Amino acid sequence: MEAPRRRVICNQKTGLVFQLQKRISVLRFNRICMAKKRVFPLAQVYGLLEPGPVVLVTTARAGQANIMPMSWHTMMEFVPPLVGCVISSLNHTFEMLRATGECVINVPTVELAKKVVGCGNTSGLLVDKFKTFCLTPVAASVVEAPLIAECYASLECKVFDIRLVAQYNFFILEVVKAWIDPSRKRPRTIHHQGEGVFVVPGRTIKLPSPKTSFFTK
Amino acid sequence: MEAPRRRVICNQKTGLVFQLQKRISVLRFNRICMAKKRVFPLAQVYGLLEPGPVVLVTTARAGQANIMPMSWHTMMEFVPPLVGCVISSLNHTFEMLRATGECVINVPTVELAKKVVGCGNTSGLLVDKFKTFCLTPVAASVVEAPLIAECYASLECKVFDIRLVAQYNFFILEVVKAWIDPSRKRPRTIHHQGEGVFVVPGRTIKLPSPKTSFFTK
Repeated sequence: MEAPRRRVICNQKTGLVFQLQKRISVLRFNRICMAKKRVFPLAQVYGLLEPGPVVLVTTARAGQANIMPMSWHTMMEFVPPLVGCVISSLNHTFEMLRATGECVINVPTVELAKKVVGCGNTSGLLVDKFKTFCLTPVAASVVEAPLIAECYASLECKVFDIRLVAQYNFFILEVVKAWIDPSRKRPRTIHHQGEGVFVVPGRTIKLPSPKTSFFTK
Repeated sequence: MEAPRRRVICNQKTGLVFQLQKRISVLRFNRICMAKKRVFPLAQVYGLLEPGPVVLVTTARAGQANIMPMSWHTMMEFVPPLVGCVISSLNHTFEMLRATGECVINVPTVELAKKVVGCGNTSGLLVDKFKTFCLTPVAASVVEAPLIAECYASLECKVFDIRLVAQYNFFILEVVKAWIDPSRKRPRTIHHQGEGVFVVPGRTIKLPSPKTSFFTK
């Protein structure tokens, strides 16, 4: 049933779909969103972002939603999870985030690589990226910005600290709700190495119990 | 000739070796360091850090050098390259960095994974990590902190902004000199996913010309 639903959505104006989805009941929302994704513990969010995947940042304002790929991000605290990220003031997302104070960090996998690059090569001022790249907005639970259904994880965020925005375009976000698709056991994220080259995770290794507190920060 | 030299160094007190190396002539330094590593353009540094590898941060003070693994880092500017990173105030490196304002970000590959984890599970207050993990300090060209010979890339850094150190332990560093081993065509960096699990890069994909400015920030 998934494919037909997506086709219908892609044949309509994404803005309308998004507004419609904002109006659907909590029960209906739960059925759509929870079909794939489960709530993910906030204390484990760092494991999603620490390896450096390209993410898709969604924002929404006045019924219009936008998508921007981003690789310049870092964890800054475990609980509550804080994420620092650079969003260029040249990007439409910068103004959207500054105005609304909310966004969603979505983690795509390699199957979406072409769409990710497409989102990076277009501007939300000119293009409706959900429609153009046939991505499905799903209502979030805490913030106005939509989750992207096709991404295996989505982190609802609120702006936490803007002290470094003026000089570095650096936002500190708090992850207030996290979602993950538990059926994706080895999600193959994409990692940008510059100039269109990306690397996809290969083998996984496990080493004896590094203490996280020493290890990551 | 490489292995015997390393064994000799590892059988001595690393502090002494480091002090000795600080005294060697520029010519000798060039011969040791440049044997493997070449100067790397500062404008391309982002491609080393953006995919999220675990790095080894070296610091030095009063002839004593230390090593700390780190995964919470992000690029913040292309040129001059700025790197934001979280270094816990519980770590010896925090005080070393705050006192000296200098460090080196070294990028290890999977062959060094056990040593990396070892460095993360010990404290520089108790252990001489160069000696314990048999890693080779090499004099840097701009900062006091040593490069790690075994790492395929090393970035000499100076502290650039400390505004967020008090609240988040977040340092902004400027990369002032970058070194790379050009013989390593596909360096297999390691990416921490939490609790001792690491992922190693697999296949590389190239997609048509994403505009870097849109893409990464």
